[in-house]
Amino acid sequence: MKTKADFETKNSFLRDEVNNHIRLALGKESPQTLFEPMRYTLEAGGKRLRPVLLLLACQAVGGDYKDALDAAVAVELLHNFTLIHDDVMDNDDRRRGHPTVHRKWDTNVAILAGDGLVALSYRYLLRTKHPDLGRLGSLFSNTLLELCEGQAYDREFETERNVALKDYFKMIRKKTGALLSSCGELGALIGGEDEKSVIALKEFGLNLGIAFQIQDDLLDVTAEEEQLGKTWGSDIRQKKKTILLIHALNEASQKDREVIGQILAKPKVELRDVGDVKSVYQRAGTLASSSQMLRDHFELARKSLLSIDSPEGRNLLENFLDSVIHRTH
Amino acid sequence: MKTKADFETKNSFLRDEVNNHIRLALGKESPQTLFEPMRYTLEAGGKRLRPVLLLLACQAVGGDYKDALDAAVAVELLHNFTLIHDDVMDNDDRRRGHPTVHRKWDTNVAILAGDGLVALSYRYLLRTKHPDLGRLGSLFSNTLLELCEGQAYDREFETERNVALKDYFKMIRKKTGALLSSCGELGALIGGEDEKSVIALKEFGLNLGIAFQIQDDLLDVTAEEEQLGKTWGSDIRQKKKTILLIHALNEASQKDREVIGQILAKPKVELRDVGDVKSVYQRAGTLASSSQMLRDHFELARKSLLSIDSPEGRNLLENFLDSVIHRTH
Repeated sequence: MKTKADFETKNSFLRDEVNNHIRLALGKESPQTLFEPMRYTLEAGGKRLRPVLLLLACQAVGGDYKDALDAAVAVELLHNFTLIHDDVMDNDDRRRGHPTVHRKWDTNVAILAGDGLVALSYRYLLRTKHPDLGRLGSLFSNTLLELCEGQAYDREFETERNVALKDYFKMIRKKTGALLSSCGELGALIGGEDEKSVIALKEFGLNLGIAFQIQDDLLDVTAEEEQLGKTWGSDIRQKKKTILLIHALNEASQKDREVIGQILAKPKVELRDVGDVKSVYQRAGTLASSSQMLRDHFELARKSLLSIDSPEGRNLLENFLDSVIHRTH
Repeated sequence: MKTKADFETKNSFLRDEVNNHIRLALGKESPQTLFEPMRYTLEAGGKRLRPVLLLLACQAVGGDYKDALDAAVAVELLHNFTLIHDDVMDNDDRRRGHPTVHRKWDTNVAILAGDGLVALSYRYLLRTKHPDLGRLGSLFSNTLLELCEGQAYDREFETERNVALKDYFKMIRKKTGALLSSCGELGALIGGEDEKSVIALKEFGLNLGIAFQIQDDLLDVTAEEEQLGKTWGSDIRQKKKTILLIHALNEASQKDREVIGQILAKPKVELRDVGDVKSVYQRAGTLASSSQMLRDHFELARKSLLSIDSPEGRNLLENFLDSVIHRTH
């Protein structure tokens, strides 16, 4: 059985490999207004969760991680494209402790930098040596479309009074689940193409992704602003239909539901309102209930790993899962 | 020798085939804020120049156009993605006689609809049955990146006092040449993969694309607004470094260069200024000189066709070229 320290060593080795390849991918200088914001975004850090998952999935089915490096770069570039465009749409000022691209430059630069990252991400994905590149490409395109669909639902929900929990789950499966799910699937396909493992690692990524989004929703009100690298309570201020807000809109007392209703009806939600909503969350048991759903999805992810034959591969992915469970930002 | 009427029949048959496939590609209803603006854009018309070129190139090397239909849909979707995002960046109000997506909805909807079109365009491209899908995908990704680079240069040039003619050509090779060049190349690759024809049709598309952009620059001041489907003189008002403006900035009299310099220094260029710039163009011989460069590139395109063996294929492409030469919008 591998220890946590073994995993940390592995994790940071793979992260460095990914970072080296990303640096090469973004080496071009000109036009400056295209490549500089791309580098700025990728160099601002980030946990490289998606590429590391892809590489671990590849190894877990007996593959060589080197064969999956191009695809790993591709998923990280695609992820960063979503960050840049989503920040424009959500009008967010900060990301990973730095000004967002559209704040540091402008919206036009952000649109173009995101578009450029999509081009580069496909370029890298399609460099992969694989007998069925059509399958990898089709999977990747479906993922990109799901990312767009998830973001569209998320924004549509902002102006709806209430959203059903099942619609919330449909949205986060696309917005956050789809890409992590693809990381598991792509890694398994490149590593060996045993269909049982492909399905298991796809499910692992999907449930991890769903849990990850619920965790994000929770961190928005429970984490320290400094850790988060972005404005505290920004989901509430944007009237995002998070799992917390949906729970409270359905489960809080009549009086508390009215409190929230009045806040959401305001043209602009203030910092003080965020505190009021948080108090409702506490009274309605929202945090406890959401935390339970979070744990449930982490457990679903853990169970998916049972059909991975390699004990070492499974163990590394369990450690990976634990590292996500214990994240603070 | 095929007549113009034969070409028209062929052209409208291929256009209908493309339109039918595009309709299928955009059949999804939900999320509405994602798919409705995509359909709105694609259904607003457009000449379907790019997919028709791709299909004609495929046939010209002896291929079956049906094998290239997915790729043809892909290039049209990618083209429409650039229209939506470019309209946001250029702050254009109208396109093909209708309000642009960001005017009819908002900027966020336009960003997302463009992103979704990229996803769909790759999905279609990668459906193509071809022994070297990696080559098609890599070509397509390079094209997408070039489109972004071209747009970035175009916008960078707006704030530069003057731009060298060679930099203008670098920009339009990417912004307009790259995609039309890919249409020739993709069609030839799918149709038969004879390298001589691949190069010829790639060159044909590239020179056609360069000519097409020069023609666009000219139409901005010579066409009727109604025909154009967008605001007359919008290039001048956006301080776009078109081939006309670059010629005038270098070749007009000292006094006329000052006239233009003063207009470009204004925070906002008015309709009256557009008329003044146009008068400078007339005095400096700008329209005549640009028209000559336009004809030169059309001729280069025509020459590329000489190495196409099939007389019928060559003839259809010549007729295609003529239809572009004689366009009025």
